[in-house]
Amino acid sequence: MSAFPQNHWYVAAWSHEVGRSLLARTICNEPVVFYRTAAGEPVALADRCVHRRYPLSLGKLVEDEVECGYHGFKFDCAGACTFVPGQDRIPRTARVPRYSLVERHSWIWIWIGDQEPDLSAVPDAHWLDDPAWGAVRDLTYSPFRHSLLMDNLMDLSHETYLHAGLIGTPEIARTPFTTTVDEENHLVRFSRHMSAVECPPFYAKSTGFKSPIDRWQDVYFEPPSFWVNNVRVAPHGVEPGPNGDDSGAAHVKILHGLTPETEHSTWDFWAVVRDFALDDDSVGDFLLAMNQDVVQQDLDALTVLEQVVATEPPGTQELSVAIDAGGLAARDMMRRLLS
Amino acid sequence: MSAFPQNHWYVAAWSHEVGRSLLARTICNEPVVFYRTAAGEPVALADRCVHRRYPLSLGKLVEDEVECGYHGFKFDCAGACTFVPGQDRIPRTARVPRYSLVERHSWIWIWIGDQEPDLSAVPDAHWLDDPAWGAVRDLTYSPFRHSLLMDNLMDLSHETYLHAGLIGTPEIARTPFTTTVDEENHLVRFSRHMSAVECPPFYAKSTGFKSPIDRWQDVYFEPPSFWVNNVRVAPHGVEPGPNGDDSGAAHVKILHGLTPETEHSTWDFWAVVRDFALDDDSVGDFLLAMNQDVVQQDLDALTVLEQVVATEPPGTQELSVAIDAGGLAARDMMRRLLS
Amino acid sequence: MSAFPQNHWYVAAWSHEVGRSLLARTICNEPVVFYRTAAGEPVALADRCVHRRYPLSLGKLVEDEVECGYHGFKFDCAGACTFVPGQDRIPRTARVPRYSLVERHSWIWIWIGDQEPDLSAVPDAHWLDDPAWGAVRDLTYSPFRHSLLMDNLMDLSHETYLHAGLIGTPEIARTPFTTTVDEENHLVRFSRHMSAVECPPFYAKSTGFKSPIDRWQDVYFEPPSFWVNNVRVAPHGVEPGPNGDDSGAAHVKILHGLTPETEHSTWDFWAVVRDFALDDDSVGDFLLAMNQDVVQQDLDALTVLEQVVATEPPGTQELSVAIDAGGLAARDMMRRLLS
Repeated sequence: MSAFPQNHWYVAAWSHEVGRSLLARTICNEPVVFYRTAAGEPVALADRCVHRRYPLSLGKLVEDEVECGYHGFKFDCAGACTFVPGQDRIPRTARVPRYSLVERHSWIWIWIGDQEPDLSAVPDAHWLDDPAWGAVRDLTYSPFRHSLLMDNLMDLSHETYLHAGLIGTPEIARTPFTTTVDEENHLVRFSRHMSAVECPPFYAKSTGFKSPIDRWQDVYFEPPSFWVNNVRVAPHGVEPGPNGDDSGAAHVKILHGLTPETEHSTWDFWAVVRDFALDDDSVGDFLLAMNQDVVQQDLDALTVLEQVVATEPPGTQELSVAIDAGGLAARDMMRRLLS
Repeated sequence: MSAFPQNHWYVAAWSHEVGRSLLARTICNEPVVFYRTAAGEPVALADRCVHRRYPLSLGKLVEDEVECGYHGFKFDCAGACTFVPGQDRIPRTARVPRYSLVERHSWIWIWIGDQEPDLSAVPDAHWLDDPAWGAVRDLTYSPFRHSLLMDNLMDLSHETYLHAGLIGTPEIARTPFTTTVDEENHLVRFSRHMSAVECPPFYAKSTGFKSPIDRWQDVYFEPPSFWVNNVRVAPHGVEPGPNGDDSGAAHVKILHGLTPETEHSTWDFWAVVRDFALDDDSVGDFLLAMNQDVVQQDLDALTVLEQVVATEPPGTQELSVAIDAGGLAARDMMRRLLS
Repeated sequence: MSAFPQNHWYVAAWSHEVGRSLLARTICNEPVVFYRTAAGEPVALADRCVHRRYPLSLGKLVEDEVECGYHGFKFDCAGACTFVPGQDRIPRTARVPRYSLVERHSWIWIWIGDQEPDLSAVPDAHWLDDPAWGAVRDLTYSPFRHSLLMDNLMDLSHETYLHAGLIGTPEIARTPFTTTVDEENHLVRFSRHMSAVECPPFYAKSTGFKSPIDRWQDVYFEPPSFWVNNVRVAPHGVEPGPNGDDSGAAHVKILHGLTPETEHSTWDFWAVVRDFALDDDSVGDFLLAMNQDVVQQDLDALTVLEQVVATEPPGTQELSVAIDAGGLAARDMMRRLLS
């Protein structure tokens, strides 16, 4: 049994990372080499030559084919071998696995699993390149297991303690929230609507709002790989209009693509998108820098926690409480994906 | 079965190391966080939050309680949880193990084991802060197993070879010694009395004595954790008086608290105490620096030896000879403590 | 069962490496200490004191004996203990294993295995100090398994890709070759004779020949440890004379002594010998530097490949093709040596 849910889409790369050179990246324990054809199509092949297992990513791109750096075997973008040194005949079995990719809204998704890829199952992350939104983005290599990052994102009460002074305020841990398991859409949702609370620096500097504010976190997680926090901040008392107009508020979405690299490491593709100050790059720069600080705090904490859980005997007890409702629901859904 | 003798006292820290901040230290494979209450009492708790196993030592001390740095759980100095974020109710099982400590003569001892701590079993190390003695002290993190350090200390013939020029002289390995197993007091003792021998720099510079000297080593080890070498050096022929007066000699005690960190690493708390030149700090400075050099030589040798024994097949043969009598007796007593 | 063929000679050191100090080197997983007696004889003993397993190589050479640096045990060059600290009696079992060595032509060979060493089985490497040849030599510590280096040397088609610009040209991978298994002499041979081909920098600068040249590679491997590539380069069309005279050609031999250190690392003793420009040191310097570059390219590639094969599940498929004939024959012979 694989350690990771199979037959799902995972974010493999930002569009700008894949070009006319070879990019090596391990996804769900599988070594993959990425490149882009001359026509612009992204390609992903198993990063091991069929001959002696040398990483293809150490070879070179020759037109739209990959040439192995050790003995010169060549493979086309379907993974078929097109050249064997020292002989004309290409053995029938000379091919490397090819991965299905979908490139959308600046993310390149990869399908991990043996079944036919389901194009309708690619999560919607259109805000990443929607002109109505301004996006800043990053990729954080995370030396800890996927489940630790998932636990972290599914319980934002930790913002009060781990991210105090950036996005954390005392009210987060204090405010009740609701958790919903949406079996039909295969989502876990949680909502925390805070009223008349302190405006943390993250939002104070970017929106100009002053405390007290109303601050909503409406999160959903689409296991195994896609997480969105829909944030609404507004001066206290400003409500959305009956016709859906909410121009008195600022909206931010924080997106994470969570892709296991190995059982003990994770690629964290994240972005912060906003519907205000679209012309003001300094706001984007500020949100990027501040979220990098937040992510770094999580990175430091979870890197330690990985060492803890990796060395503890299996079955070591945890104590779960009310704030863990979202995390436990997500774990449960993940468990079902793995069975 | 634990790899370490249970229901014993181990030196956990020097008094000055534990204060109003959190100190993380692993003892016998158990992660522990130490701090001192506002009233000055040392406290030791398991260094793992009961919630998601985050090290409490990465949180902060709030009055006399520890607040977890991840989600804000709080624990008092008995290990009871006093705050859970997002709810008022404290679950009955929300507590972390607390360790019994005894603070004496500048050492903080910890009780490892499930039985009731036996206060009468704390080894006597009163010379560490006895005004009749002058002490210098250090802590050496030792990346090798407890048994290698025990073997080392139980056979001082190695001073001739490994510590030549510091405390080693040719006569040590050459001089017969006696070994006694004191079952009643649970001790292994050995004595080596050298007569008319060379005075090594360690004692020549600190006492001013010139060769030849009489030099006695009366060692006892109280397994698993406490070792004392009672040294008497005197000009050759100067004997203790019949009434116990021995003011013509200089007395030094070398103390080691041997505390396993893991199966492959050890905390070595050590001190050199003397009954002469109490007002002359330069003598203490000299003894400290010179013993640091001696300990460093052992550290270098045993770090190599750890690599050797860790990679050799179990059951690799050793050859024991007469000089190993003390070490073998100590190993035997340790084996009984573990069974 | 050992991971390495037993009862064979392996190159242990260059003659100049072994002198009047102690050299530690692991051969086929066995820690060995080397030194030379005052009379100039090389000696190899197991690098572990019989007493407490301390590496003898950390002690010192006293006349022709090794004194352990921990407790002073001494061993003569037959491995017999000659001194035990603290006692006069030497236990009968106090000895360390001694290894048989043969020193020939600047290589010191060691016999690994329990059987009597077979002096007739030392491979012939006389070119290393034959006055008719000029030699340059090196030792490359190779952090990968013996089999990867063997595969590499048994299939020189990789020169075209991995060593392009140094010794690789397009014709190598393209030219057919013959493979022979010489069971009687326990050798695998392969020959590739290229006619009217490009002269790579390695030979162009050293011989002065210009393209096109004829270039022959006549390789033999004597498992488990000795590999020779007999190279003949000549201006195109220049043939050896009927009487064996071949003075219109330049001859180079590339020798490798392949000695496993552990299952995952290898000592690569190599030399380049030539029968031309014997008086011109700059030619030797050039061949040395250029072959170091070639070896470095292999080192980089095989270090990566070791990581790949060490982490892949056992039984991962390879695809072998015509160019692998030599490598497969060598693997087969190695397999028989191990059974």
